[in-house]
Amino acid sequence: MSNSPVFILIRPQMAENIGMAARAMMNCGLQEMRLVCPRESPTSDKAIAASSGADGILKTATICSSTDEAIADCDYIYATTARRRGMIKPIRTAHFAAEEILQNSQRKYGILFGPERTGLENQDVCLANSIIEIPLNPEHCSLNLSQAVLLVGYEWYQHKIMAPGQQFILGKTTFATKEKINLFLQTLENKLNDSGIFQQPEKREHMSINLRNIFTRTDITEQELNTLYGVINHLNIQKNSQKEE
Amino acid sequence: MSNSPVFILIRPQMAENIGMAARAMMNCGLQEMRLVCPRESPTSDKAIAASSGADGILKTATICSSTDEAIADCDYIYATTARRRGMIKPIRTAHFAAEEILQNSQRKYGILFGPERTGLENQDVCLANSIIEIPLNPEHCSLNLSQAVLLVGYEWYQHKIMAPGQQFILGKTTFATKEKINLFLQTLENKLNDSGIFQQPEKREHMSINLRNIFTRTDITEQELNTLYGVINHLNIQKNSQKEE
Repeated sequence: MSNSPVFILIRPQMAENIGMAARAMMNCGLQEMRLVCPRESPTSDKAIAASSGADGILKTATICSSTDEAIADCDYIYATTARRRGMIKPIRTAHFAAEEILQNSQRKYGILFGPERTGLENQDVCLANSIIEIPLNPEHCSLNLSQAVLLVGYEWYQHKIMAPGQQFILGKTTFATKEKINLFLQTLENKLNDSGIFQQPEKREHMSINLRNIFTRTDITEQELNTLYGVINHLNIQKNSQKEE
Repeated sequence: MSNSPVFILIRPQMAENIGMAARAMMNCGLQEMRLVCPRESPTSDKAIAASSGADGILKTATICSSTDEAIADCDYIYATTARRRGMIKPIRTAHFAAEEILQNSQRKYGILFGPERTGLENQDVCLANSIIEIPLNPEHCSLNLSQAVLLVGYEWYQHKIMAPGQQFILGKTTFATKEKINLFLQTLENKLNDSGIFQQPEKREHMSINLRNIFTRTDITEQELNTLYGVINHLNIQKNSQKEE
C-alpha cells in the first residue's frame, strides 16, 4: 500500500458527503483524506454517521487552508472533472489512472475532487498533471461527490487486487467426477427405460444426448448428485405405484 | 442498447435510495428499473428529489409483488451480494459480468439488488444463474444500495462504450512541430549565450540536453510556445537592463 493515492476534497459543502466519501474510500482500502476549507467538520456527528464505520478516516483527515498546501508533498496530481475546459491537459479514464498509479509505485499521487455544486475551479485544475474524466452518460454525467470518490477508488482497488473475474463457490462439496455423473445418467436412463418411455429407439438417443448436455453444462457437485438420486428414486417409485393401480 | 440489463431492487426500504439508484442508473445510460415490494413509492417526493433529474426512470419503474414476477421475462439473472453463502453458484466480478452481458446480446439479463439492511435473502439468490460479488476491502465491504447499483452500472457502461484510456484536450491549438520547438530552443540558447551564462562549454551541453528533455516530454502546443517566447523575450530584456545598470 506504499503508494495509495491521497484523496483531496476541495471545499466540500456537506458533512454527509464527507462521511460517505470516507465510507467509499474504506470500501476501496484507501485511508488518506485531506480536506481544503471544508464548510463542515469531518468529525461532525453527521459526517461520522454517514461514514458507516469509516470514522477512522475522518478522524485522521488533514484539514488544509489551500490546495497548494494539500498537494505539497505529492509529485503527481489528478483533477477529477466532468466538464471540459479550455485547458491544455491530458485526460485519463479512472481505469487508466488506476493502472498508472499502481505502475509507478515510487510516486506520491493526489486526486482532487471539487465542491458538490460547482466542481473544481480552473485555479485548482491547472495544478493537476492530468485530468480524470469518468466516462458516463453524456446526457447525465453529474455524479454525487461520494459517487465520484467511489468510482475512482474502485478502479484503484480493482487494479491493486486483480481479483479473478469468475469463481465458483463449492462450500464443503466438490465437483462430481465424469464417472459419477455417467453412472447417474445410466441409472436415470435405465429407470426411464423400465418406465416404457422409449417406444421409438431414435427418441432414446435424442433424450440421452440432451440429458448429457444438460448435466455436463451445469457443473454438478457430489452433493447435488445425491439430491438428484433422491429425486429419480422417488419419482420412479411413484411411477411404479401408479402403474400398479 | 438492445440488451441493457434490467435492474431489480428487492424490497428497498428508503425512497432516497431508490432515487439515488435511479440517478446512478442514468449516469450509466441504463433505463429499466423494477421494484419488488418497495416500502416507499419510487415517485414519492423524496425519491424524485434524490434522483437529481433521473425521474424518468422512476416514473417508468415497474412495481412487482414477487421476485419471480420481476424476473419472468429475463433469461439470465445475477444476484449481487457481498456475503458468501452455503450456495453452490458461480461468482463473477461486476467487471466480468459486464463483459458477459455485452457479449451475449441475444439474452435478457436481470440484476437483483437486496434491501439496504440485510441484502438479498437465500430465496432470491437461488433464483440467480450466478452471483455478482464486487471485489472490495474485505474489512469494510458493505455498500450503500445506490453505490452497488452505481458500480454494476459503471462496469456495464465502461464495457459498452470502450472509451479510450487517455486523451489530450487541445482546444483550438495544435501540438507544436519539432521544427518550431527546435527553433524556440535555439532562440533560448542564443539568449542564454548572450547573457554570458555558459562560461564552461560542458555546462552548455548539459543545459541544452536538459532543456530538450523538458520541452520534448511535456508536449508543447503552438499556443504555449507563444507564451514561452513572451517569457524569454521579457526575461532577456530584464537581464540586459540589469547589466546596463
